[in-house]
Amino acid sequence: MLRYTIKVLLALIMSLEFSTAFSQQRPREMGIVIGVLPTGPGNSITDVKGVQVGHFTKIEGEHIRTGVTAILPHEGNLIQQKIPAAIYVGNGFGKLAGSTQVEELGNMESPIILTNTLSVASGIAGVIKYTLNQEGNESVQSVNALVGETNDGYLNDIRGQHISPEEVLFAIQEAHSPNLQEGNVGAGTGTVCFGFKGGIGTASRKLPESLGGYTIGVLVQTNFGGVLEINGTPIGKELGQYSFKNQLESVDGSCMIVVATDAPVDERNLQRMAKRAMLGLGKTGGIASNGSGDYVIAFSNHADNLIPHQAPALEKTKGTFLRNDDMTALFLATIEATEEAIINSLWAAEDMVGRNGNQIKALPKDKVMEFIKKQD
Amino acid sequence: MLRYTIKVLLALIMSLEFSTAFSQQRPREMGIVIGVLPTGPGNSITDVKGVQVGHFTKIEGEHIRTGVTAILPHEGNLIQQKIPAAIYVGNGFGKLAGSTQVEELGNMESPIILTNTLSVASGIAGVIKYTLNQEGNESVQSVNALVGETNDGYLNDIRGQHISPEEVLFAIQEAHSPNLQEGNVGAGTGTVCFGFKGGIGTASRKLPESLGGYTIGVLVQTNFGGVLEINGTPIGKELGQYSFKNQLESVDGSCMIVVATDAPVDERNLQRMAKRAMLGLGKTGGIASNGSGDYVIAFSNHADNLIPHQAPALEKTKGTFLRNDDMTALFLATIEATEEAIINSLWAAEDMVGRNGNQIKALPKDKVMEFIKKQD
Amino acid sequence: MLRYTIKVLLALIMSLEFSTAFSQQRPREMGIVIGVLPTGPGNSITDVKGVQVGHFTKIEGEHIRTGVTAILPHEGNLIQQKIPAAIYVGNGFGKLAGSTQVEELGNMESPIILTNTLSVASGIAGVIKYTLNQEGNESVQSVNALVGETNDGYLNDIRGQHISPEEVLFAIQEAHSPNLQEGNVGAGTGTVCFGFKGGIGTASRKLPESLGGYTIGVLVQTNFGGVLEINGTPIGKELGQYSFKNQLESVDGSCMIVVATDAPVDERNLQRMAKRAMLGLGKTGGIASNGSGDYVIAFSNHADNLIPHQAPALEKTKGTFLRNDDMTALFLATIEATEEAIINSLWAAEDMVGRNGNQIKALPKDKVMEFIKKQD
Amino acid sequence: MLRYTIKVLLALIMSLEFSTAFSQQRPREMGIVIGVLPTGPGNSITDVKGVQVGHFTKIEGEHIRTGVTAILPHEGNLIQQKIPAAIYVGNGFGKLAGSTQVEELGNMESPIILTNTLSVASGIAGVIKYTLNQEGNESVQSVNALVGETNDGYLNDIRGQHISPEEVLFAIQEAHSPNLQEGNVGAGTGTVCFGFKGGIGTASRKLPESLGGYTIGVLVQTNFGGVLEINGTPIGKELGQYSFKNQLESVDGSCMIVVATDAPVDERNLQRMAKRAMLGLGKTGGIASNGSGDYVIAFSNHADNLIPHQAPALEKTKGTFLRNDDMTALFLATIEATEEAIINSLWAAEDMVGRNGNQIKALPKDKVMEFIKKQD
Repeated sequence: MLRYTIKVLLALIMSLEFSTAFSQQRPREMGIVIGVLPTGPGNSITDVKGVQVGHFTKIEGEHIRTGVTAILPHEGNLIQQKIPAAIYVGNGFGKLAGSTQVEELGNMESPIILTNTLSVASGIAGVIKYTLNQEGNESVQSVNALVGETNDGYLNDIRGQHISPEEVLFAIQEAHSPNLQEGNVGAGTGTVCFGFKGGIGTASRKLPESLGGYTIGVLVQTNFGGVLEINGTPIGKELGQYSFKNQLESVDGSCMIVVATDAPVDERNLQRMAKRAMLGLGKTGGIASNGSGDYVIAFSNHADNLIPHQAPALEKTKGTFLRNDDMTALFLATIEATEEAIINSLWAAEDMVGRNGNQIKALPKDKVMEFIKKQD
Repeated sequence: MLRYTIKVLLALIMSLEFSTAFSQQRPREMGIVIGVLPTGPGNSITDVKGVQVGHFTKIEGEHIRTGVTAILPHEGNLIQQKIPAAIYVGNGFGKLAGSTQVEELGNMESPIILTNTLSVASGIAGVIKYTLNQEGNESVQSVNALVGETNDGYLNDIRGQHISPEEVLFAIQEAHSPNLQEGNVGAGTGTVCFGFKGGIGTASRKLPESLGGYTIGVLVQTNFGGVLEINGTPIGKELGQYSFKNQLESVDGSCMIVVATDAPVDERNLQRMAKRAMLGLGKTGGIASNGSGDYVIAFSNHADNLIPHQAPALEKTKGTFLRNDDMTALFLATIEATEEAIINSLWAAEDMVGRNGNQIKALPKDKVMEFIKKQD
Repeated sequence: MLRYTIKVLLALIMSLEFSTAFSQQRPREMGIVIGVLPTGPGNSITDVKGVQVGHFTKIEGEHIRTGVTAILPHEGNLIQQKIPAAIYVGNGFGKLAGSTQVEELGNMESPIILTNTLSVASGIAGVIKYTLNQEGNESVQSVNALVGETNDGYLNDIRGQHISPEEVLFAIQEAHSPNLQEGNVGAGTGTVCFGFKGGIGTASRKLPESLGGYTIGVLVQTNFGGVLEINGTPIGKELGQYSFKNQLESVDGSCMIVVATDAPVDERNLQRMAKRAMLGLGKTGGIASNGSGDYVIAFSNHADNLIPHQAPALEKTKGTFLRNDDMTALFLATIEATEEAIINSLWAAEDMVGRNGNQIKALPKDKVMEFIKKQD
Repeated sequence: MLRYTIKVLLALIMSLEFSTAFSQQRPREMGIVIGVLPTGPGNSITDVKGVQVGHFTKIEGEHIRTGVTAILPHEGNLIQQKIPAAIYVGNGFGKLAGSTQVEELGNMESPIILTNTLSVASGIAGVIKYTLNQEGNESVQSVNALVGETNDGYLNDIRGQHISPEEVLFAIQEAHSPNLQEGNVGAGTGTVCFGFKGGIGTASRKLPESLGGYTIGVLVQTNFGGVLEINGTPIGKELGQYSFKNQLESVDGSCMIVVATDAPVDERNLQRMAKRAMLGLGKTGGIASNGSGDYVIAFSNHADNLIPHQAPALEKTKGTFLRNDDMTALFLATIEATEEAIINSLWAAEDMVGRNGNQIKALPKDKVMEFIKKQD
């Protein structure tokens, strides 16, 4: 108990600089210290320099609870300065657009858009509009839009397809850094996670200089099920709320995960980082159920490795890349930041009533803290 | 020469029943007999019972030369009766929507839409609209739209995004069987292939009863480059028109390939069939260039293996499937039908003038026949 | 504390039937109840009817600390009666033999052999010898041996290649069921895990009848690093022993995981189960480091789905398979059994001194139990 | 006819420098000019500087017809100086060892060994012995041996496993450059292709300076079936010898393909090159039948991109790599060289009688030339 109090105080002191930015205390400030690596200054994907995040939240009437989250890997023209990227499919019951080209070419060239399952078309249309209209893109005739989704149809009138391309553009234009909104915001507006209200969450890790000093940031859109654990504490079991408790109940849902780093990582090693994000999801009790669309998009915006849209023929790439041997610390950072981002999404999300009066309660944080303190 | 004449006569006789359906003679009727296996009755993907194809062709003003082709795997409600399917990525510089879910679940649940690169969003939106509005789909909240594309931006004002979701719906509603349109139609309206006018092409093979008696049909949207060969004759070389003839010229482009069969093939073996389609593309001289989006979608609509959208919990699937050992004949059929479908697309396509006065000539069939006869 | 005691008593009573079979108490009997699903009767891969496990342990002189573990999926002639199987590569820094054929054909046809990195050749040779000499295999000319490994070179003179094909045969012939040896045995003789002595571990889950009643068993060969957690308790942190504590230390190693089930699961869904095993590894604190060879082999020995080596041409397969929708419970079972099998391997392993006097201590179980009780 | 004669004369003149090295005329010297790109000086994989090839041929008594072919990517210590590499599985009914590590790490670290299906264990053991014993490798404890195979069991007593690790070592030690043996040699000693005697074949392409000036070399071990075409001429049909002519006959077999280049190509683009090799196989009439183990191993030995086994921590890689946009010419070169290498293997192979008196005839080159001349 004493140890717990000291932990909380230390965490509070460490986070003082940033604590005003979030609307409420985050788990780490409450003493829930996930993993062994230090966080970046904001414990957010925007700790990776250049990464910007924008949300469009649409809560209208009784039935519309949805939105868009846009992640911009760097502040420049993305199609003119592509970046190394990779995608890992944790479970592919989802409609992610753009994956095969990323895999083939090893790069991405657009903002990442997250939204609801039936609005992927608007996501693509918005990204294309954004790209075609950017200065310098007058002759662009091909755009690989990266658009992910989860299904918010329990709280949201998803069949109504209430996201327009213009609203996607709005989210892109809203993108800035630092961005510290979590919970019922953007693409997380109507999502459900472990039976509680899910949403957007983010976290980061900053490796010590001896391991390279790189930052790894993660953003998640949480909408999945399983047997919730928070930093090892079996919250789902303790609260009696978990998948298969009542044996034939549905457990489906999805998790979109974006992993960003400033480390000079090539697309193959980005794919390996992406793969590790699923271990972080596993540590929260996620099980990647049959109906889950669990996708991880990983990118590196290291300045040395931007890929020009056009270059003189036969001009070779002279990149700077981490060796395989130095990747393990980044794997650990990815696992930890993913686990924490998911917990952060639950922590920030609030009760919501939506479509047909369906309602989802937020994680009961007081009870959760009781269980956690008891174990500390 | 005599041998050639007899071949032509035989081919003409064999094709008599169907020859009126196509607007002109097809290569096989001219004596170009690709492969060793017999064709289906229409030498078309619609020889696979239940498969329907619809086109929407949009030629407007000076700059719009594009369209949509819809392939319906069976005549029923596709999301309620899904079918085993697989996708193979020959080269992934493309925007195919829907691939990861097909790979994860082993099935498809929508029409296949082909269109231009910047109209994939309309393709998805059209398929979702089609599906949500079908009788029996009132509670559907998730639709995996399969939408492929090639880039028709040389002849078409692709940046104008001239395909609407309604036009996609129109193509779906136009779908019927038999369908025998090839060339400058639907998604092939503005495409270019080996420097000649490309388009839609189709072909089929019917295995002898001793090999199962199954039908394999292929439909292609041809928009790629390389060193054209027609049934082994080096037409590209002979005409002096091929990639890298002038050494730094661009060779990019794409080929969408749809493979259909009535054979009871599971998703793993469909993937293997899909892989073989690229060997057929290779035989026409295609090289799957860096900028090519070469995707193969393969499906089986065998009646025993339809997959209900919903079923009682724990109800097991009792499918009927070909063994690995019996797949080779289907591989050969896929290779042959793909090669022939590509040649058919070139044969049927006609001269076109489009965007900015750009023009592409049809394959010079008279000259081609001269080269071929010389070698026979 | 009281709750803890009751848990232990209950676990002891439940395990009474089997407790004599293991040389010591297993974690579950000590009150460490991982997950929410019940175990099979022996909490072992051999709970899956027909699965047999055999070990050959080689501890000789000061420097040899290695061995072989053989897993037989069923009791019949494996090449004559193949079974659906799949492999998932968690991290591919390893020498697993046989993976591409399993992936292509969807089945396996040999015992699974686990051994050390430089003895894979002996593993293959042993399996081939076993297969060629089996009655009924007189005309067999092709054998796909599945041989996995981890690197026991810290405790074992691995460069000496001390495993012969005959010793592999011996392990196969030793295979029987139930098999309840864990720890420093067979292929786990010289392995190291989280800095403690690793080894062979096993566990199982038995789904309730309402979820199908199937058994899922897992066997692991643990030789990897990370930040150890036991059922959520941060043992690595508490003991101050974890990867990157001293920042540039090596963390490499590997984990071979075998997942068996009697459920009628096809190869695609077996691959999905295999993928989930890595979530179980993640929950123990594994990070799939750069140098890790983390492979999961999953198979189903359901009697309806055996695949005859030869069958009349065109005879179709009429299998019985679980639908995608019913897989999630099996995913959860795989995660839980993998996590528990890994912990079991650490629990059973004992101190070992080996090559060049290198020594590895067993997990300090008393201290571990203190930490765990404190949290309970 | 005249054109043909001139072609032959030109080809003869161009090949004069090398024509004595081969025991007989190769197809190109006979006027069979495959593709549009020029060959390297020896039209051999050893045109790629540093690549060495060694054979061990074992023809003993009436029943042993087998061997080993070793390809060394560069002349140094391969495990100390690894090279970028990739593997593509055309069809995975085969026992290739080492694939997953190449895929995970993007590099290879051993000679490539080709042999027969049941001698892969000897291949691995030979490579490990070679590597452990090399100067500088005293502390090596892990070796990823790349060993491929085809099944020579029709002509060879394959169940006898007549290749020893020492014979594998012998093939490695025999490796030198230039190496110009083709046909019934090394791993091609007992193989069968399109019903004719197969074997080892090789070819190369040298890109013009405007496309980079790089060399692409291919070596094949041919043991597969289909409907043979030689540079577009339907030899299989003309000779009445092809798969499915008699409808239920077997068509299985395999093709191992090694693609080497001195171009600075990273592992992702090497994978793309590897994929194109299958298009070359397709152009010879190969169909990648169900029972075929068709694997392509591609590597680049460009001096800038060697990967040291050990490097200071955090030392970054500064490679030099071709951009995606410049890869297409290398794709075409790979297709052409693969097609030609396969034809070369058939051309060089000679009649063979082996196991149980089984005999396979060489390609009837005189008849073949008649058909080809007629078409010219």
